[in-house]
Amino acid sequence: MNIKDFEYNQKIQGYYMIKKIEERTSKNGGTYIDINIADQNKDEINGKIWNAQGMDLNAYKSGILVKVRGQVQKFNNKMQLHIEKIRLVEQSDDVNFEDYIAAAPVSSNQMIHEIYSFIDKIIHPQIKELTLTLFKDKEVKLSYYPAAKTHHHNIKGGLLYHIRTMLDLGEKISSIYDFINTDLLYAGIVLHDLSKTEEMIADELGIVEDYSTEGKLLGHIIQGITEIDRVCRELSIDDEIKMVLQHMILSHHYHAEYGSPKMPLIPEAELLHYIDLIDARMYGMNKALSNVEGGSFAEKNYSLDGRSLYKTSFGDTNNG
Amino acid sequence: MNIKDFEYNQKIQGYYMIKKIEERTSKNGGTYIDINIADQNKDEINGKIWNAQGMDLNAYKSGILVKVRGQVQKFNNKMQLHIEKIRLVEQSDDVNFEDYIAAAPVSSNQMIHEIYSFIDKIIHPQIKELTLTLFKDKEVKLSYYPAAKTHHHNIKGGLLYHIRTMLDLGEKISSIYDFINTDLLYAGIVLHDLSKTEEMIADELGIVEDYSTEGKLLGHIIQGITEIDRVCRELSIDDEIKMVLQHMILSHHYHAEYGSPKMPLIPEAELLHYIDLIDARMYGMNKALSNVEGGSFAEKNYSLDGRSLYKTSFGDTNNG
Amino acid sequence: MNIKDFEYNQKIQGYYMIKKIEERTSKNGGTYIDINIADQNKDEINGKIWNAQGMDLNAYKSGILVKVRGQVQKFNNKMQLHIEKIRLVEQSDDVNFEDYIAAAPVSSNQMIHEIYSFIDKIIHPQIKELTLTLFKDKEVKLSYYPAAKTHHHNIKGGLLYHIRTMLDLGEKISSIYDFINTDLLYAGIVLHDLSKTEEMIADELGIVEDYSTEGKLLGHIIQGITEIDRVCRELSIDDEIKMVLQHMILSHHYHAEYGSPKMPLIPEAELLHYIDLIDARMYGMNKALSNVEGGSFAEKNYSLDGRSLYKTSFGDTNNG
Amino acid sequence: MNIKDFEYNQKIQGYYMIKKIEERTSKNGGTYIDINIADQNKDEINGKIWNAQGMDLNAYKSGILVKVRGQVQKFNNKMQLHIEKIRLVEQSDDVNFEDYIAAAPVSSNQMIHEIYSFIDKIIHPQIKELTLTLFKDKEVKLSYYPAAKTHHHNIKGGLLYHIRTMLDLGEKISSIYDFINTDLLYAGIVLHDLSKTEEMIADELGIVEDYSTEGKLLGHIIQGITEIDRVCRELSIDDEIKMVLQHMILSHHYHAEYGSPKMPLIPEAELLHYIDLIDARMYGMNKALSNVEGGSFAEKNYSLDGRSLYKTSFGDTNNG
Amino acid sequence: MNIKDFEYNQKIQGYYMIKKIEERTSKNGGTYIDINIADQNKDEINGKIWNAQGMDLNAYKSGILVKVRGQVQKFNNKMQLHIEKIRLVEQSDDVNFEDYIAAAPVSSNQMIHEIYSFIDKIIHPQIKELTLTLFKDKEVKLSYYPAAKTHHHNIKGGLLYHIRTMLDLGEKISSIYDFINTDLLYAGIVLHDLSKTEEMIADELGIVEDYSTEGKLLGHIIQGITEIDRVCRELSIDDEIKMVLQHMILSHHYHAEYGSPKMPLIPEAELLHYIDLIDARMYGMNKALSNVEGGSFAEKNYSLDGRSLYKTSFGDTNNG
Amino acid sequence: MNIKDFEYNQKIQGYYMIKKIEERTSKNGGTYIDINIADQNKDEINGKIWNAQGMDLNAYKSGILVKVRGQVQKFNNKMQLHIEKIRLVEQSDDVNFEDYIAAAPVSSNQMIHEIYSFIDKIIHPQIKELTLTLFKDKEVKLSYYPAAKTHHHNIKGGLLYHIRTMLDLGEKISSIYDFINTDLLYAGIVLHDLSKTEEMIADELGIVEDYSTEGKLLGHIIQGITEIDRVCRELSIDDEIKMVLQHMILSHHYHAEYGSPKMPLIPEAELLHYIDLIDARMYGMNKALSNVEGGSFAEKNYSLDGRSLYKTSFGDTNNG
Repeated sequence: MNIKDFEYNQKIQGYYMIKKIEERTSKNGGTYIDINIADQNKDEINGKIWNAQGMDLNAYKSGILVKVRGQVQKFNNKMQLHIEKIRLVEQSDDVNFEDYIAAAPVSSNQMIHEIYSFIDKIIHPQIKELTLTLFKDKEVKLSYYPAAKTHHHNIKGGLLYHIRTMLDLGEKISSIYDFINTDLLYAGIVLHDLSKTEEMIADELGIVEDYSTEGKLLGHIIQGITEIDRVCRELSIDDEIKMVLQHMILSHHYHAEYGSPKMPLIPEAELLHYIDLIDARMYGMNKALSNVEGGSFAEKNYSLDGRSLYKTSFGDTNNG
Repeated sequence: MNIKDFEYNQKIQGYYMIKKIEERTSKNGGTYIDINIADQNKDEINGKIWNAQGMDLNAYKSGILVKVRGQVQKFNNKMQLHIEKIRLVEQSDDVNFEDYIAAAPVSSNQMIHEIYSFIDKIIHPQIKELTLTLFKDKEVKLSYYPAAKTHHHNIKGGLLYHIRTMLDLGEKISSIYDFINTDLLYAGIVLHDLSKTEEMIADELGIVEDYSTEGKLLGHIIQGITEIDRVCRELSIDDEIKMVLQHMILSHHYHAEYGSPKMPLIPEAELLHYIDLIDARMYGMNKALSNVEGGSFAEKNYSLDGRSLYKTSFGDTNNG
Repeated sequence: MNIKDFEYNQKIQGYYMIKKIEERTSKNGGTYIDINIADQNKDEINGKIWNAQGMDLNAYKSGILVKVRGQVQKFNNKMQLHIEKIRLVEQSDDVNFEDYIAAAPVSSNQMIHEIYSFIDKIIHPQIKELTLTLFKDKEVKLSYYPAAKTHHHNIKGGLLYHIRTMLDLGEKISSIYDFINTDLLYAGIVLHDLSKTEEMIADELGIVEDYSTEGKLLGHIIQGITEIDRVCRELSIDDEIKMVLQHMILSHHYHAEYGSPKMPLIPEAELLHYIDLIDARMYGMNKALSNVEGGSFAEKNYSLDGRSLYKTSFGDTNNG
Repeated sequence: MNIKDFEYNQKIQGYYMIKKIEERTSKNGGTYIDINIADQNKDEINGKIWNAQGMDLNAYKSGILVKVRGQVQKFNNKMQLHIEKIRLVEQSDDVNFEDYIAAAPVSSNQMIHEIYSFIDKIIHPQIKELTLTLFKDKEVKLSYYPAAKTHHHNIKGGLLYHIRTMLDLGEKISSIYDFINTDLLYAGIVLHDLSKTEEMIADELGIVEDYSTEGKLLGHIIQGITEIDRVCRELSIDDEIKMVLQHMILSHHYHAEYGSPKMPLIPEAELLHYIDLIDARMYGMNKALSNVEGGSFAEKNYSLDGRSLYKTSFGDTNNG
Repeated sequence: MNIKDFEYNQKIQGYYMIKKIEERTSKNGGTYIDINIADQNKDEINGKIWNAQGMDLNAYKSGILVKVRGQVQKFNNKMQLHIEKIRLVEQSDDVNFEDYIAAAPVSSNQMIHEIYSFIDKIIHPQIKELTLTLFKDKEVKLSYYPAAKTHHHNIKGGLLYHIRTMLDLGEKISSIYDFINTDLLYAGIVLHDLSKTEEMIADELGIVEDYSTEGKLLGHIIQGITEIDRVCRELSIDDEIKMVLQHMILSHHYHAEYGSPKMPLIPEAELLHYIDLIDARMYGMNKALSNVEGGSFAEKNYSLDGRSLYKTSFGDTNNG
Repeated sequence: MNIKDFEYNQKIQGYYMIKKIEERTSKNGGTYIDINIADQNKDEINGKIWNAQGMDLNAYKSGILVKVRGQVQKFNNKMQLHIEKIRLVEQSDDVNFEDYIAAAPVSSNQMIHEIYSFIDKIIHPQIKELTLTLFKDKEVKLSYYPAAKTHHHNIKGGLLYHIRTMLDLGEKISSIYDFINTDLLYAGIVLHDLSKTEEMIADELGIVEDYSTEGKLLGHIIQGITEIDRVCRELSIDDEIKMVLQHMILSHHYHAEYGSPKMPLIPEAELLHYIDLIDARMYGMNKALSNVEGGSFAEKNYSLDGRSLYKTSFGDTNNG
């Protein structure tokens, strides 16, 4: 049963994914379970299990599918689920795990295919070979890695989706400025965040557990630069090409306080920065406004400089 | 004779435009003229007129065409022109003034036509009417106004060129993000800098003489917002549309310290900001690198955050 | 019964205003009411209603007058009210709602009268007419609007009180600097915050519920400038006067990061800024120190840059 | 002859004060003198002495009165004086040195008298005694010290003039806020900058030659605090009074980066800061606009945050 | 029994110090005690006293030694003590209070002795006398004062320990730079924080209760400067020596926003700043890493600019 | 003849090094040479060659030794050399080039030897091997490279001198904090700036001509990290050691705006930063004060945050 269809006092039952689970104590000595569950639409509801006798809390964890029976109650003017029965999903339930995972709207295979097509558009053989080699190295991890822990594109396959959309943007924008070297631009886009796969530790659901030790001590920009260095040596890439691509990675956050000790010094590096930013912002803004009604404001959003976005009431006149 | 073909000790002669002229004193009591002249390619050279007896300095000013005869000398390892003879260009010389003016690479008529086509793509009738009315009001001034005094697009028709290129960018970028309301985006692009025609006082060569008093006390963002307000009242435009477009103008510099007291709160305002920035940067970078040889650095550029850009030696592999 | 006279274990009874009310759950499944009530001195106390059976929580809200009976208890070394009985105030109780509202120390009528007297001191007929027209437009809302949601003068009639005190300050300070144009100064003071009545949505108790949509997208400075623009057109006010008054509104926060894209460029705008600041600070400091004993510190105050003020022990030697 | 009456090619003669004098070399080996002179209105003009043979340059210095004869020439569209004859002023010339000095518009005696009257209004005997003692200590220096080297009130008696005007402001502003302790406020105003007489080394013309060593290593705020400390010990002043007045001196620049490690923590310290600022700004703005025509802008002013002020064309309607 | 040896469900008993104690209410009307206790290793555990009937809460306070009996329970995967019995420690228990206090690893007597030895190395008689006098004045308080409330060296005798270690550093570093005047350096180190004994109010356990009024209004830097001023007058110390030492105190935080209105202008002041910083950082880092395993990260530390430090897994190869 | 012994009107003759040379024009059409020369003490004087007929200006360049004859003249109260004769130094003159070069006070051989001794103190074999390999790679360049273009240690062998002094500091400071891993600290000190030899292009006199292209696009921190990466692969160094040393290089400027995207996360990295800073500051301060008299101030120094340092008049009481 879909969470958005719940009504007060209704008896409900269905399959859900645990998003958060915590044992709590009541002041009269007993304990209860505070739990958040989500359905296939990724909508969430909070619930309580007042009697947790005999539940093996090591089995019930975030990311686990469960079958739930309970009653919808009103608490502080919000819905809350009084959970009467809960058990782990079994094979015979025939529930598809993938349906409960927030993921990119395009399949990873499709996106990987598209990115290879873009790499194929690179004319300079060394730039192409280098880009191909590094992308192949990361292909498996990219099929599920998100682009961030809590910021934009924090979904399964999010990093891949971000790269692919940036390549589209890069192609369109460079069609307007004919002095742009698209070899450099495409290579820069493909490579710019590849080492996030080494900076973060993510599982196959696209959920980041933590940053790696090297990620904390060096960061993906520095990791990416040394990876390019290594592969360039192996492939005997020209020194200037190596240096320019390393510079693009180094400068793509633009500001020193965001991790780029050098500002972009070539137009392709400048574009890379803005394409990265635009895609992050468009993703975040679209998501922030997705459940907002026309004529009202979204909640304050820390990934968007603390802004509370507005949705116009006259909508997308042009798109429909 | 073209300046880039000058050689040491050569006698030269030709028609040039004065870019800078100044009377100076030598310490032994005499005076001489320090002058910069430019040819049709907009290349410049410094020259000296040691004997300025009888020259009417009120006639010789920046922006004036002159016929010059002189000799190329070496001074501190640079070329300098020892000017022996100089006179004002006369009608019989058959020199075309326009050839000496830095101007947009597309004719103003052509650009105005293209912008009208974009306005025609706006679906919402009120947004279209408002945009049309304000653009028409400024059409004459736009045919020659630059976009800035010293920064990007400071050429004749520069503001028009900036708007037109931004519209191209807007169309391409919004084709990737389908939730973008292109009515708002196109209107925002057309309107965002229109009041620069009131903020600055420019002549028909596209040269800014000064900022207007209102420009100094209010600035083009505030001027633009009150202009929209006035026209919306005249046309009985819907309040929300007025407010949202005013918000787009208000927020398009993004940062308070650059003149925007509110940050963008709708995705179209966010895009407007980045499209504006990208076009300014691409214009400035292209220009900064135009005379730089591959493998070397341009001069420090204050319009580009003080950067000294690099030009790769392997060039535009993809564009040739 | 006054809250400051309560004693431990005392049985109390009286009329109070609800300031905050919230339903809470106890961990054994039951619910109770957490409530803050205030008396006519605006002193507050927290209370609990352990048995809320049958209370219509839609009727009991912040800003409502109630009759309360209960017992004062000690909890964590502070007083807390165990509420045994609570009901809504009825007409027959003969309780005056106004007595429970934090309001300016002078009546709105009196303040409005004084401000008209100041406007009358303006000599230049256009400046006077413009100021009069805009002030009249807002007179009704001003009779109850506060000057802010949580900062200084957040009381009923607070905005009016702020304007009136600023006019007093303006008259006194300009008596020392004879080059100041008091027409501009008085007009600037009256107009500077008028559009807060459009930026915020407040009820007749002077309590701000929220900011308006236009307030969030444009802000009172921009709203004020367009209002001046409109009225100037209607009254055919001289362009320079319009522009200078708009500049005063625009620059009165002085710093770009506080909403003023232009710094004050005339002495009257400079004074307006400091008079605004002084009155806000004196109001806030007086209030912050009002319940502090001599020789000790007030609590940290976020409206005063996070400062914890000190009250000297030797007091106001000069005032009494 | 007054400088503002000079005309091109005119022969002039008169008594002037040297404001700047410098020996320069011409490139053919000779030397000449570049000199600025001012008349009684403090207007200045630049001049050249091409033949400086036999001039004793140790005698001709800034601040010296001279008799000058020469001819007004046009150079780069500005007036310049070709000085033919120059000699030191002699007693028999009957020129009054004082007439050439930029000084406060009120006599030092008068200002000192007024400040004593204010000190007399202090009620608390210890605050009065302390203020009196410190002011007496500095009375002689104050009769000519400026308030700054290059910023506001950099004229003879400028510090005294600043203190006196601040006291007027303090009296007027505190009449509006009755919780202000005027004893503290008056004492704080008198004491706040007294140690500038130790921080800077100024001559009796009110010209600052340099900062003292102690001024550079400690600064007038710290110097003032230790002076108060010393005198409080000598006079057995109450500890809290000492501490509070030291705090007022310490915090009167408000911001750490302007020299105040503590922000004001009492209302009187807050007012002291704003009164100081207002008087500095009003002085500087009045001066910056003094030679500006209505409807135009003053030059960029570094003492006023780099602003270029505007003078309205409709003037002081109220003061005429 | 040591806390680090506790196991789930174990019955325990022992002597502990109360670190935090609070009465709380359960929602069913009852109250219980939430308490933190520490053992001699300064390890802490949280406990609950569900039945606090008859406990005199005025006697049980932070810093008090108690005898505790209870059972270790598991709550939210952490240990929690269910306290069954608690009483105050009595003389007959023979528990040594000092064992429970976090203190410097060297005895105060020993440190005081060492500091006197350093003062003895000062050659210039006036610098030595001044330093000796001020240090003697503070000797008693220094025997237990910490260096800060919550930052580095916040332990009994911490300020003394900080000074002593800084003197060691000063001696070693100045042995490399022979132009350093060690008289000034040693004096500066001894004096730099002495007035923290006036800025903070600490008890003999080295726990800071609060800042003093003077500490809040002036701060230890200003307090230190006036103390030096007073003693220099009493001892007739040379003006330059006084001024230079005051400058060292004034500038030792280096940055205005950290309380130093002047930056260091002599090399000894520069060194003082860095020696102070190094000792604070080494102390804080050593402590932050003390319970961290090799190859992992410490918790975020606000005294260390919010960093989460890393401990290498290959350890101190050189020290073992 | 030594420059510091020159007197006005004296005829002088001697061997000097050219420090700056420039052809200039006099306004009457002729040219002359403006030149700075230095003696063996590195003292400098400005001179003019009024008649440069027949001088081959390609031969006379900065860094060249010349024999000069001329007369000392007074110009603007400073000494200036009227150069009558100048020629290049010849072999038969028997002048030692080295004597005219600003260089470290210890021979490069001696410093290299000392650094090898420090490397030998490293216990961990991999850390030692890595450090040794990288140091050997750079040994030749280090024998003359300065540490900076215009900042501290900008002398021949300056980088070596900086490293060696830092190692001394590191040894002394780590003797006080026994938890410091000296292997890491020594390795970090040796490696931290090694890639400055790739970032800058310097000649064998230790004069930096320019930054390299890679230096401008990446900078020595990034260059150093990739060099460590390469050598670690070649030597099969343990991953954690590589990562930790790269982190030390990355973080040694501490602040992002100075080029360190990560702050130090291990104590050895923290110490490396402060040791680097202390040595740079002590070098710069010693130099800035070297020609200043006691009781007066040095000139404003941009390498020292714009400070004007003070030299006490009581000098180094302890070192004499």
